Amino acid sequence: MSSGFTLWFTGLSGAGKTTISSALAPILMERQLRVEVLDGDVIRDNLSTRLGFSKEDRDENVRRIGWLCELLTRNGIATLAAAISPYREARFEVRQRVGAAREGSFVEVFCDAPLDVLKDRDPKGLYKRALAGEIKHFTGVDDPYERPRDPDVHLDTAGTSIEHCVGQVLAALEERDLIPKT
Amino acid sequence: MSSGFTLWFTGLSGAGKTTISSALAPILMERQLRVEVLDGDVIRDNLSTRLGFSKEDRDENVRRIGWLCELLTRNGIATLAAAISPYREARFEVRQRVGAAREGSFVEVFCDAPLDVLKDRDPKGLYKRALAGEIKHFTGVDDPYERPRDPDVHLDTAGTSIEHCVGQVLAALEERDLIPKT
Repeated sequence: MSSGFTLWFTGLSGAGKTTISSALAPILMERQLRVEVLDGDVIRDNLSTRLGFSKEDRDENVRRIGWLCELLTRNGIATLAAAISPYREARFEVRQRVGAAREGSFVEVFCDAPLDVLKDRDPKGLYKRALAGEIKHFTGVDDPYERPRDPDVHLDTAGTSIEHCVGQVLAALEERDLIPKT
Repeated sequence: MSSGFTLWFTGLSGAGKTTISSALAPILMERQLRVEVLDGDVIRDNLSTRLGFSKEDRDENVRRIGWLCELLTRNGIATLAAAISPYREARFEVRQRVGAAREGSFVEVFCDAPLDVLKDRDPKGLYKRALAGEIKHFTGVDDPYERPRDPDVHLDTAGTSIEHCVGQVLAALEERDLIPKT
């Protein structure tokens, strides 16, 4: 039984959390790991159906995903969580929680892209709607995002390719002995 | 990697759901299975913090535990869920959901004990408080419990010993090839 860990992808909407975690998952499976991807939107549809986007509700949502990460990590699963998780303290709580189950098993991955780039790309038109005031509490527009001060992995998702970002995460996992070196 | 399954313990408060599942867990671990116990009360403290005890909220709580069972089962974990889960339809939904991931991987275990016995035992004094009207929406007192019509395992938890009940569940798992025969 391999040891589990949690890769926690944080960043603004459109910054590549789901893209990078989805690209990573099959690579980790190929390396014989059991992998589970917890996508923020899927969690909201299943475990956080009645939560909104106030700070309190966002923190509660992050806490639930964190609880799930802990559960999966201690069962030997490579858990990839993709959630905006805008508040530093809530992310820290999850780190403490997952890390308590197994030292060093929580890896924060910051998907960093400038807001201007995201507003330009905006494939789902969400920023446009948020800027027009049609969506309230939109992170980066009228809701805060507290950048990680010292993430385990810092990805420049606007300036580098998906492959490069995936490679960076894999290198970090190897360095921490969370996956065997190839 | 062993195949996962879900043992779903349903029954009134005090009918032995937590007791039997807690007694089973170490036996399954000894047989080299990865085991996770999802206790209804723990879930309420972590994933269902804002749910109450209306039918709607109870169903939502059961749905969340079911989602978790599906997640763990497909990751090869022997998942023991202990939740009153009073409504037949909500239990059926979970069966469909978990069973879809892997045919026959959902096993409903009915912890059956007469209400009078539970009222007499009442180690936490909950029935007494419910009968006095201090707790509202208490299953079996002023809230319904829909007995399973055809549970996979029917335990007489008032009339037989814990060991006997545990043996019955193990036999059912062996019969379904969910654990190897000893």
